[in-house]
Amino acid sequence: MAKIKVELKDRSYDIIVGCDNLSELGELVRSEKWGRDVFIITDPLVNDLYGDLVRKGFKTKPKTLEVPRGERFKNLRVAEKLYDGLARYGAHRDSLIISLGGGVIGDLAGFVAATYMRGIDYIQVPTTLLSQVDASIGGKTGVNHPKCKNMIGAFYQPKAVFIDVSLIATLPARELRTGLAEVVKYGVIEDADFFKFLEANAHHLNTKAFENEDTKRAALKLWQTIVSESAKIKAKVVEKDEREAGLRMILNFGHTVGHAIESLTRYRAYNHGEAVSIGMVAAARIASRLRLLETDVVDRLKALLDKLGLPTEIDSLPVDKIVAALSIDKKVIGGKVNFVLPEKLAKVVIKDDVSLSVVKQALNEMGGQ
Amino acid sequence: MAKIKVELKDRSYDIIVGCDNLSELGELVRSEKWGRDVFIITDPLVNDLYGDLVRKGFKTKPKTLEVPRGERFKNLRVAEKLYDGLARYGAHRDSLIISLGGGVIGDLAGFVAATYMRGIDYIQVPTTLLSQVDASIGGKTGVNHPKCKNMIGAFYQPKAVFIDVSLIATLPARELRTGLAEVVKYGVIEDADFFKFLEANAHHLNTKAFENEDTKRAALKLWQTIVSESAKIKAKVVEKDEREAGLRMILNFGHTVGHAIESLTRYRAYNHGEAVSIGMVAAARIASRLRLLETDVVDRLKALLDKLGLPTEIDSLPVDKIVAALSIDKKVIGGKVNFVLPEKLAKVVIKDDVSLSVVKQALNEMGGQ
Repeated sequence: MAKIKVELKDRSYDIIVGCDNLSELGELVRSEKWGRDVFIITDPLVNDLYGDLVRKGFKTKPKTLEVPRGERFKNLRVAEKLYDGLARYGAHRDSLIISLGGGVIGDLAGFVAATYMRGIDYIQVPTTLLSQVDASIGGKTGVNHPKCKNMIGAFYQPKAVFIDVSLIATLPARELRTGLAEVVKYGVIEDADFFKFLEANAHHLNTKAFENEDTKRAALKLWQTIVSESAKIKAKVVEKDEREAGLRMILNFGHTVGHAIESLTRYRAYNHGEAVSIGMVAAARIASRLRLLETDVVDRLKALLDKLGLPTEIDSLPVDKIVAALSIDKKVIGGKVNFVLPEKLAKVVIKDDVSLSVVKQALNEMGGQ
Repeated sequence: MAKIKVELKDRSYDIIVGCDNLSELGELVRSEKWGRDVFIITDPLVNDLYGDLVRKGFKTKPKTLEVPRGERFKNLRVAEKLYDGLARYGAHRDSLIISLGGGVIGDLAGFVAATYMRGIDYIQVPTTLLSQVDASIGGKTGVNHPKCKNMIGAFYQPKAVFIDVSLIATLPARELRTGLAEVVKYGVIEDADFFKFLEANAHHLNTKAFENEDTKRAALKLWQTIVSESAKIKAKVVEKDEREAGLRMILNFGHTVGHAIESLTRYRAYNHGEAVSIGMVAAARIASRLRLLETDVVDRLKALLDKLGLPTEIDSLPVDKIVAALSIDKKVIGGKVNFVLPEKLAKVVIKDDVSLSVVKQALNEMGGQ
């Protein structure tokens, strides 16, 4: 078990990374004296898979509130249903919410915790690789607005992030890969050794390894390292910039083009990690075109993502539309188009003056039409 | 002009108390470089009265978003309309919200500021005495849930509280009195000299003084002192307990019975200050019955409130129902019934074990049926 502290003064907390430890959460909550009543917020699928395992660790069974599964239910209406449920069960300021699920549940349950009775305690229990290495850490909570994802939200830190890496073994291959894109991102922005470690182990980072018990055990050891190292890097960045005023923007490496592609394809053709994978290659190519980055690193990044089964080309998407989507983002957030560009492994710079023609050239190189 | 600092580390801010200074807000915002765009949230009546005065101080006219007037519009639906409006105008993380109005507008606009794009800057410009001395200070924001007032909200501090005491001269007498109840509260819980000052000046604290220009000017000087002293006391309490974990509860002096009376009469028969006035006398009588407080202080408190025109008796309300309403509150907040009881002027104690028979006796003394 690894314990990673996120240092945020009176809002500090631990990220606990274990394996097969889901049933131990109850004991932790009891020993830390968190919450007089406990409420689990989850979705039906996750509840079926892990709900009982979590609940059995508690002496007094927590109440469970289910919300429908899927990003489109991450909205104020569903948040209101959760407020109603909490009020009906008499949840109060001493109650504790356990967010059990992937990023959607984490954002939604975190937002409800942030705003129920002006903020009650909550714990993130992320069940996907993507949420374990990214969304569950750092206190970003929120729901979507018809006009803009995550437009309504709060920065609100959990009391703990409690991770069971054994859950990774149950994920579909594509869900595993989407998390890996963010893992690779950490290597590029902050840790060259971690990047090399990923290069060396890439052939083990897939669902094949879970097919028999021996390789599964070895694989989960490897995953524990990967999740812990990722969490460490994310924690370090969050500590320095809790409210995303500056540095934390480096976590958006790959997300500028990535987000444009996601919204252009209406969040259907690519999942988040796939879009980020393409976006990272795009950012690296842009950096290389601007002579900030050696082409060698671009090649290594592309090779690693390829090996992990993530997309690194833009099959047939029209470059003009991607660039137009960048500008819509720009309008929505009222600012400039920021690019996080690597100068070498573990060193990135933020540029808001990248010319669109350079962006287009990079996207053309990647097969964009 | 008085400037009172609220010390909350990186969330510190000033309360600025001036007179006829509403048109100077634009200059302050400019010199402090707050907000790239400015949005005023207000209601139609306040907008008619003061909107232009505020707007004319800005070089670039702020956009104004109006919400219907009244507590029943302090809900998530109206908050959503505000999110929509902000999004439509392209408000972003660098935008600034000015909350221009009484407590309802302050709570609502503060909540929207707390949750739009995970929190943007806002300034409280309270236009009623009640909001100037109480609601605008301390970062409590929120909206009502059908089951419970202010159930959905956040602690989110403004960048400044900007007060123009001259607005007090335009308030109806009853609106003035509701604010005075909270002013008297500050004297009782924290400052005996301030209480004596109120006793000495009580005969000036009414709308009569505003009827001609000479007495108006003198009265506004007096009000400036009263608002500043009240703000100082509130700021001091908030500094010690930002998130209402303990000490801040003393601000609920008079609010236990007060809230029971408000909800029993469905927020119609009494306004907030009137209910708190009755609640303060009830709390003082309870304290006296428990031999915590000399009867002399009970008498002085009642005399001061009487002189200010606030109710100190419970005409014909059934005592049993008031006590039952206390228990409903208890169930809703999942805790015990806390009473803030004075031991002498400027010294209160919190008790959660007051017997209901003592409460009933105190209420009977006050004319309850």
